[in-house]
Amino acid sequence: MARLKMGMVGGGLDALAGGLHRRAAALDGEIEFVVGALASTPERAIAAAQAWSLPRPYASWREMLDGEQRLPAGERIDFVVVATPNHLHAQIASAFAKAGFHVVCDKPMTHTLQDAKQLAATIEQTGVVFALTHNYTGHPMVKQARHLVKGGELGEILKVVVEYNQGWLADTLERQGHKGAAWRLDPQRSGRAGAIADIGTHAENLLRYITGLQIESLCADLTQHHGRALDDDGSVLLRLAGGARGVLTASQVLQGEGNGLNIRVYGTRASLEWHQERPETLAVRSDDRPNQVYVKGGGGLCPAALRAARLPAGHPEGFNEAFANLYRNFADTIRARKAGRQPTDLESDFPNHRDGVRGMAFVEAVVDSNASDAKWTSMERYLA
Amino acid sequence: MARLKMGMVGGGLDALAGGLHRRAAALDGEIEFVVGALASTPERAIAAAQAWSLPRPYASWREMLDGEQRLPAGERIDFVVVATPNHLHAQIASAFAKAGFHVVCDKPMTHTLQDAKQLAATIEQTGVVFALTHNYTGHPMVKQARHLVKGGELGEILKVVVEYNQGWLADTLERQGHKGAAWRLDPQRSGRAGAIADIGTHAENLLRYITGLQIESLCADLTQHHGRALDDDGSVLLRLAGGARGVLTASQVLQGEGNGLNIRVYGTRASLEWHQERPETLAVRSDDRPNQVYVKGGGGLCPAALRAARLPAGHPEGFNEAFANLYRNFADTIRARKAGRQPTDLESDFPNHRDGVRGMAFVEAVVDSNASDAKWTSMERYLA
Amino acid sequence: MARLKMGMVGGGLDALAGGLHRRAAALDGEIEFVVGALASTPERAIAAAQAWSLPRPYASWREMLDGEQRLPAGERIDFVVVATPNHLHAQIASAFAKAGFHVVCDKPMTHTLQDAKQLAATIEQTGVVFALTHNYTGHPMVKQARHLVKGGELGEILKVVVEYNQGWLADTLERQGHKGAAWRLDPQRSGRAGAIADIGTHAENLLRYITGLQIESLCADLTQHHGRALDDDGSVLLRLAGGARGVLTASQVLQGEGNGLNIRVYGTRASLEWHQERPETLAVRSDDRPNQVYVKGGGGLCPAALRAARLPAGHPEGFNEAFANLYRNFADTIRARKAGRQPTDLESDFPNHRDGVRGMAFVEAVVDSNASDAKWTSMERYLA
Amino acid sequence: MARLKMGMVGGGLDALAGGLHRRAAALDGEIEFVVGALASTPERAIAAAQAWSLPRPYASWREMLDGEQRLPAGERIDFVVVATPNHLHAQIASAFAKAGFHVVCDKPMTHTLQDAKQLAATIEQTGVVFALTHNYTGHPMVKQARHLVKGGELGEILKVVVEYNQGWLADTLERQGHKGAAWRLDPQRSGRAGAIADIGTHAENLLRYITGLQIESLCADLTQHHGRALDDDGSVLLRLAGGARGVLTASQVLQGEGNGLNIRVYGTRASLEWHQERPETLAVRSDDRPNQVYVKGGGGLCPAALRAARLPAGHPEGFNEAFANLYRNFADTIRARKAGRQPTDLESDFPNHRDGVRGMAFVEAVVDSNASDAKWTSMERYLA
Repeated sequence: MARLKMGMVGGGLDALAGGLHRRAAALDGEIEFVVGALASTPERAIAAAQAWSLPRPYASWREMLDGEQRLPAGERIDFVVVATPNHLHAQIASAFAKAGFHVVCDKPMTHTLQDAKQLAATIEQTGVVFALTHNYTGHPMVKQARHLVKGGELGEILKVVVEYNQGWLADTLERQGHKGAAWRLDPQRSGRAGAIADIGTHAENLLRYITGLQIESLCADLTQHHGRALDDDGSVLLRLAGGARGVLTASQVLQGEGNGLNIRVYGTRASLEWHQERPETLAVRSDDRPNQVYVKGGGGLCPAALRAARLPAGHPEGFNEAFANLYRNFADTIRARKAGRQPTDLESDFPNHRDGVRGMAFVEAVVDSNASDAKWTSMERYLA
Repeated sequence: MARLKMGMVGGGLDALAGGLHRRAAALDGEIEFVVGALASTPERAIAAAQAWSLPRPYASWREMLDGEQRLPAGERIDFVVVATPNHLHAQIASAFAKAGFHVVCDKPMTHTLQDAKQLAATIEQTGVVFALTHNYTGHPMVKQARHLVKGGELGEILKVVVEYNQGWLADTLERQGHKGAAWRLDPQRSGRAGAIADIGTHAENLLRYITGLQIESLCADLTQHHGRALDDDGSVLLRLAGGARGVLTASQVLQGEGNGLNIRVYGTRASLEWHQERPETLAVRSDDRPNQVYVKGGGGLCPAALRAARLPAGHPEGFNEAFANLYRNFADTIRARKAGRQPTDLESDFPNHRDGVRGMAFVEAVVDSNASDAKWTSMERYLA
Repeated sequence: MARLKMGMVGGGLDALAGGLHRRAAALDGEIEFVVGALASTPERAIAAAQAWSLPRPYASWREMLDGEQRLPAGERIDFVVVATPNHLHAQIASAFAKAGFHVVCDKPMTHTLQDAKQLAATIEQTGVVFALTHNYTGHPMVKQARHLVKGGELGEILKVVVEYNQGWLADTLERQGHKGAAWRLDPQRSGRAGAIADIGTHAENLLRYITGLQIESLCADLTQHHGRALDDDGSVLLRLAGGARGVLTASQVLQGEGNGLNIRVYGTRASLEWHQERPETLAVRSDDRPNQVYVKGGGGLCPAALRAARLPAGHPEGFNEAFANLYRNFADTIRARKAGRQPTDLESDFPNHRDGVRGMAFVEAVVDSNASDAKWTSMERYLA
Repeated sequence: MARLKMGMVGGGLDALAGGLHRRAAALDGEIEFVVGALASTPERAIAAAQAWSLPRPYASWREMLDGEQRLPAGERIDFVVVATPNHLHAQIASAFAKAGFHVVCDKPMTHTLQDAKQLAATIEQTGVVFALTHNYTGHPMVKQARHLVKGGELGEILKVVVEYNQGWLADTLERQGHKGAAWRLDPQRSGRAGAIADIGTHAENLLRYITGLQIESLCADLTQHHGRALDDDGSVLLRLAGGARGVLTASQVLQGEGNGLNIRVYGTRASLEWHQERPETLAVRSDDRPNQVYVKGGGGLCPAALRAARLPAGHPEGFNEAFANLYRNFADTIRARKAGRQPTDLESDFPNHRDGVRGMAFVEAVVDSNASDAKWTSMERYLA
């Protein structure tokens, strides 16, 4: 299988995100990371590219776009990874898409909902493949959860509780030279929201991926600590399409929490529960039989869950592998295009620009709800 | 130690509650269950008392009150357990209190907030000992949690997430001859709320017991299924004294849930987590050291937690023992009174009529909030 | 239902065992604890009986036997609980049995295998009901495990791993005034073995109760620390009837262990796993379907498991309730006898004198194996 | 950092092992997989190399050795991975070592103990860097466990229980075209043992890595099912240097088990427990304080545990990352050599040929013990 060529914008040396992308893309040996404009100054961009032994370092994303466009089709990159702070996503992704490059873009998709809608329109017009890094949908048990809901195993959904608990901003890292903390809490670079944008959108996406249900209206209470300009904690009541209720919480100031993305879905026939920190089990419970625990590599799994596992049961896979599943499906979709065929449902199973618009609409609705005295804020006008 | 004599109103044969009280009172062999008016008709009341081999069966609570009052002090009951549906609590408890009997009363304390305030006044006036069966505060690890918060181990509290998840009303038991389901969903007997009154008050009480924080305002979204007259599911955003935020959920329609009363408390220094379904461990987590897991019978426990355990580490105790701890402290408080001394803090550690008023205020505020378009409902006027 | 009357020998104030029996017998309100010879000196025996408010205190077990025999049938005790150190079990149990009293006897059944065989013969001859306190078989999920094995759910058994891990003798409690430690480590009172007798027999019994398999031969390695006269740690390889292999370990010097009685049974079709410290779940796993987790109060349970639960799902029951189940079945068997009928299989489901002989044979075989250079010691001659 | 060049012998398309090595080497982007002789026939070897897009496919390992030797130093591979069945390890590893190539060799190291000793001598003579793939020692929490034992946190070790539970050979995969099953159960290719060699050596290595204790004598009971020529299940009693006792079990016929490598170490001061299937937590327990749970990314970790993590707390890493840690340390050791310096202790922290000899001595002693009627088999003569 010919390796795809990848370039990255942002994500340089001291950023967590760059390493995540690099490992996820490398894991299966089917993607070659060849070029990068990895930092916001030319010097640091070049230094980072050299540290990672990239054959073609670039000083800026514009140089990279120019340079790659000039190369013949077989040599230039197939796709770009946009791993910058949020405010740059739309501009860079859009420029590469217009030049015909496929795009992997970090979440949340853009700086504003308006940007998101424009970028989505560009993606539609150019027809490039676009993946948004809601990487947690890459876990086999998340795919199994979606499969069970779709197949009616849970009956009609009554309630969803999704939470994303982190503790890394319990202290003021943003004042201690932590770049990721600094830009995430800066409205100029992050957008109108902090934690809700950074991780709340993961929760919103996970809820939607598993249940297929849209949020119709919401009621939000956000807080911020340490004099921050953006929220670092929030709780949101949800009303979902079809009448189900929900609770979504996202926080980055919860001492002792690592990366607690958890979801429970309750239906009329059964409920399910999944925890990102122990991602290879999925509990399904109802009153009339023993509880069921699906496990990676075990019995009863759907094709998407089987495809998403590289190792047998009991050989733990985690964050990197789930992220790599996003990359694999994205790459397989590109390869299908190259081969002149439609990607299969299994191949096109990754978050895209439509998810990105949904996520940004969620962010803006939550921020507006938080500022409002009215209990319910409808999602309708954000999606118009 | 002389055994105390106990009578019970309600809780007869086919009710869960009666058995709970009976076992909790019996466990330590220090309380004798001698009389009962265990059901709402004379025939069933007598039959139930005979089935339980009670020496003095009564046909009604009024006969019981009369009968016991006529007995000399050493023979009559020391206290009455009120285990009827909610609408009868105030009347019965008040009558027995006025006659000088101590009272154990099921939660929620009364049918209405107004009733609660009146009953509380009666308790204060009569000076009898009154315990409200928020039995979950009897768990050793709940007491340890309270101890840690009080001692500042968690720092300032930022967020509390408390949930009470049950599934027993997923089906319409109330139409299938299940008496407990029927009265809990009947406004005439239950009050203005269903699940929020029945188990939401447990969650509210647990939050307050562990953190010491009062709810200042709240925002509720309740639902009811199967055409029920009262809520069977609810989610509530909380603002707590001192600025902490919270989320409280209570539901009885969650398939697969047994009795999932869970609480997490996040502070500036550490967080704690406790689950009623595995009650003998308490996790405390912070970023700068290994996680701590306190266990019943293990190291580092406070006096209240030590006192609340009857068995060594690894010998599981659960619901019955926690409930028995409430009875033991209640009984020890009565014994202290009899002995003419003040009960110690350890002995008087059980929920009382003031907790009952708090709980009923919570119920009414939640119901009003649910009906309101305003986001926040202040608790202030309910407690005036 | 008429309450049975119970007397106890041993188990007085500062012994753990007495409290265990007292609570287990009291829980259901169907047994009255009326007499006791609770300690080895008259003064302490009387003091203990008074502390527990027993109506008829006795100074010694012989006085108790005499006194009760003189009472009319409706007043005297129905059964005696033998809760003394091991060396007294046979003598006391035998004397009461010969006088027609039913017997609950602590494990291991006797001081020596010879004693056990004689006592068993006495029980058979007198026809009294005899229960041996292998109380862990009282757990609903242990009964479910037995049910699954019997029903062929696991296929043919290939391997069993059973362990009993405790840590309470990591320190030299026997030299610090701890009576239970002192007699358990004293050959004159305990017998030829320490941990193997005290808890190894629980493990042996649990293995046999769940799988129905007898040990055919074994290979033991025992240790003792702190200059003790008896083993405080042991590991035993097992060969079971039908060809299955096993590993049994028992230790009381394992720091951090509370009461870790755990068993795993592996068959050709599925395996099961149960842990006493979280007794209300039972995992069953096989490769061709999701894992199954049976829970108390949940779906798929057998009649014996259902009968063994007093509370709904999610209301934790533990050590006391399992012990109370032994008492309940023992009492129901006595009641069946009184009513002139055969007890049902559910009622007679408790360990008896035949289990006691098995346990003592196991103890002696393990001790002999430990002293031998031969790899395998056959159980045959111990059971002859 | 210049990428090292890697070649592989064996591990081709349908073998699990090849993919494991490929991913582990790829994860950090610091090793380039350039050549392979991936299967035992030229056609399949070439096909596999092409499927993985290797620049230089070879038809056999001898051609590969020849070919690479002819290349200039900067172009040829730095090291070879030997991922064949056991009987070929010694020959291939030895040939490459003699030609100056560093070696990663699958476990168990060789076909016989004699082979192991010869290969170890060759490694010593040639001075190449040699890593044996006891990959589970790459987990951060295993390194933390070793650190705690070394630092005396557990006191003197009294008992070790290590088990490796798998179920993949519950069915006769070896007769269904599963190559890995077939050679592992074939004495000509596997050696004198089946499960004990394949996974028992992992358990032996893990025990030794964490505790630093050597096995002095052992007593083994092996079984084989389905008419197999080699063991698929075994239990071994251990006596360790310094007087500690142990139990080691390894089985591949345990229904429902995935890859259950678990270890518990009990000392005079505390105990620890680690499970490979949830590798990012390490429990440490003692009686005088709350239990401690070390977590990847959390507080209190040693340098080796910190170095072994790529992601923050709560971002699950597992099998691939632990294996990649072995590769990283191996590669860093090679780089240190290239740079003319001694590798640090952190860099040289991977299993080597001395571990391989230990492992093969363990295998032979277990097989001999199993055949013997004597209880104890001393390790002494195997290590002479």
